[in-house]
Amino acid sequence: MHIEILCTGDEILTGKTVNTNYSYMARRFGEVGLTVARGTTVGDDRASLADAFRQASGRAGAVVVNGGLGPTVDDLSQEIAAEVAGVKLELNEDWLQRIQNYYSSRGREMPPNNRKQAMLPAGSEIIENPIGTACGFALNIDGTRFFFTPGVPREMKRMIDEQIVPRLLDLSGVNIVTRLKRFHTFGIGESRADLLLHGIVQNLAGGSVKLGFQSHYPQLETKLAVQGSSERELQQRLSPIEDQVRQRLGNFIVAEDDQTLEQRIIDVLRSSGGSISTIEMFTGGSIAARLLQLTEAEGLIKRGIVSRELNQLMDAAGVETGQNVELSCATAIALARGLRRKSGSSHALAVLVSLDEDQAEASGGNIITAIADRDHAKCRRARLLGGRHWVRLGAVELGLDCLRRYLFGLPVEERIDFEQPMD
Amino acid sequence: MHIEILCTGDEILTGKTVNTNYSYMARRFGEVGLTVARGTTVGDDRASLADAFRQASGRAGAVVVNGGLGPTVDDLSQEIAAEVAGVKLELNEDWLQRIQNYYSSRGREMPPNNRKQAMLPAGSEIIENPIGTACGFALNIDGTRFFFTPGVPREMKRMIDEQIVPRLLDLSGVNIVTRLKRFHTFGIGESRADLLLHGIVQNLAGGSVKLGFQSHYPQLETKLAVQGSSERELQQRLSPIEDQVRQRLGNFIVAEDDQTLEQRIIDVLRSSGGSISTIEMFTGGSIAARLLQLTEAEGLIKRGIVSRELNQLMDAAGVETGQNVELSCATAIALARGLRRKSGSSHALAVLVSLDEDQAEASGGNIITAIADRDHAKCRRARLLGGRHWVRLGAVELGLDCLRRYLFGLPVEERIDFEQPMD
Repeated sequence: MHIEILCTGDEILTGKTVNTNYSYMARRFGEVGLTVARGTTVGDDRASLADAFRQASGRAGAVVVNGGLGPTVDDLSQEIAAEVAGVKLELNEDWLQRIQNYYSSRGREMPPNNRKQAMLPAGSEIIENPIGTACGFALNIDGTRFFFTPGVPREMKRMIDEQIVPRLLDLSGVNIVTRLKRFHTFGIGESRADLLLHGIVQNLAGGSVKLGFQSHYPQLETKLAVQGSSERELQQRLSPIEDQVRQRLGNFIVAEDDQTLEQRIIDVLRSSGGSISTIEMFTGGSIAARLLQLTEAEGLIKRGIVSRELNQLMDAAGVETGQNVELSCATAIALARGLRRKSGSSHALAVLVSLDEDQAEASGGNIITAIADRDHAKCRRARLLGGRHWVRLGAVELGLDCLRRYLFGLPVEERIDFEQPMD
Repeated sequence: MHIEILCTGDEILTGKTVNTNYSYMARRFGEVGLTVARGTTVGDDRASLADAFRQASGRAGAVVVNGGLGPTVDDLSQEIAAEVAGVKLELNEDWLQRIQNYYSSRGREMPPNNRKQAMLPAGSEIIENPIGTACGFALNIDGTRFFFTPGVPREMKRMIDEQIVPRLLDLSGVNIVTRLKRFHTFGIGESRADLLLHGIVQNLAGGSVKLGFQSHYPQLETKLAVQGSSERELQQRLSPIEDQVRQRLGNFIVAEDDQTLEQRIIDVLRSSGGSISTIEMFTGGSIAARLLQLTEAEGLIKRGIVSRELNQLMDAAGVETGQNVELSCATAIALARGLRRKSGSSHALAVLVSLDEDQAEASGGNIITAIADRDHAKCRRARLLGGRHWVRLGAVELGLDCLRRYLFGLPVEERIDFEQPMD
């Protein structure tokens, strides 16, 4: 069934407010197997709204309208719905009473404006809103079922979950289930992943699985969207493809679905009783901040030190400074070992960076990443291009990814797409 | 002129990604006096996209399309634009060369997929994208001018500002100049700013200046949008109002226009020959990272230390730990003084946080901010509510703002709207 979402409101149209209601509704529908085919946004304007209703009724099986159910002059949904449906507005006495109760239970009197909220198109089905004065309703316009929902996020969410989703599922008569499987990788670009996974969908699932990519440098998200008539069928379709993806993308996969790279690092540290300290020379504290965002990281991140100057880091890590402290694996490992001892953590990660002198737009940086635990240490050198900001983002992800690989026993030196030969 | 914005992409349609590109574009257009009449969102689907193009061309004077210019199978904008316009796709040799250069300057070879990005509808006007491989272009479809822009936010924003807005203004025949003056504040909410600035626009400029607010917790942006027939007229209208705003918002103003709070801190440190070290107990390295983002911060941020444990911070700051180390101004000042000495910086900032035991949804944290220089020290206690994430954001901003006030000789203790009485 072709479903459309129509959002009305000047603040959304003008961009003053970001349209988070739309994303909520679309996501929710997707989760229960209902596909949204189009989203439309119009302002508090009679002509635009009427046009939008008419055009949607020409295309869609069901339309969910959000907004325009309030008590002010800008709220037009009931009026325009009635106009386009060719019916009159009628006072719904029950709803009027409901609004009056809403105010009296708060020790107030209903402002006269709110009466408007009880004027509904004749023949509408009333849709329950237990937590506000906007009345949800549904009616047919040219054979398309229109559902009208309140713009207030809290009221919308509840109505969508409790009232709209069941009605849409009923209307669609389609008994499908869907799932979205996601793989997050670091180190390969979108074009390479596309190449690596070439043919995977056609070969294995006869087209009922859709492959897509979403790039968020430095990570890439690979998505498999499956549809089926039962959970079991979903699983049957998805399993072989998931396996193929894991095989082809290999060690580049940092996390799946809602997991994150830092979550996986925290999880393995917690389960092994480990902890980490960090040394950051260019990433400015971003690596520590990423890890410390997680509530479960409490107690697992012992200490982080940040400085652009090697001498400062040596002092902070309790390492004796020799004559010429140079940027090298030896230095990085010494820093990691030093901070590990000083802070008492089981592991330490050092990410040192030297930027090219010539800071042109696509200039680069040499990154030295070292990890030390009680008995061992590993160091990885990489060179990234793309300008200061790009290099910083890459260095953060590279540091965290090397740590992940180290903790999971995967090769730390595996080359990534973005790196250049070291100078 | 009737302008529409058409966003294409499954991740937007399904609600996976919130449509912030739309708000940016609509807001930007509104700021220069161009009204958006409708927003539409469709997925990576040939039929939907073609329908949307055709329907918009029936209604609009100009359409701005966003997304679908990437190198993968999901990217369809060029193909469908050509189809609906009734022209062929042609290889643009210049753009192909541009893409190849983009990769070679990063020491890589252009992946074969990207060639697709140089296939443009015959007769298109090329629209410059200096920072990506997606080629912006414009062409007429049934008498409506369509502008195609990249979905990557950074690329979209630049193209909108530098290329699309001038073209739209030109097309709309609007002969005005506009300016947007912005004030960024920390510590007052939108309602309070609205109150403080009440009447400012009516009193001083006869209505040709529009006042607006945009909330980005923890900061608030106050915007003055001026229109005029010449730059001189703009300036005449704006100056007295700017002065009034500075007077009324006072010390809460942290930066203006494209300046940032951290930029101002860096600027004053540099001009005074100073430097800073940071101690972060809950903000995880975010304060150091904010400062170190700026190229000019090199050499000015001496050292940052990060830990959830007070003992770790004491050790890192070279402060003797007594029996019971407690969270207090005395401890915060001792940490700031200690790290200042150890790192050799002229100033040090310590931000200590203790979260409420009961981590409910709107729980709070007590924040102790201390700043020390060679001769003096100041400490500021504050309590914020709103849950862990909100408290963290507030603590970062509060720390940086206290530092700004200290360095500029403004009162550090000035109460902000968000704070509660300390426990």
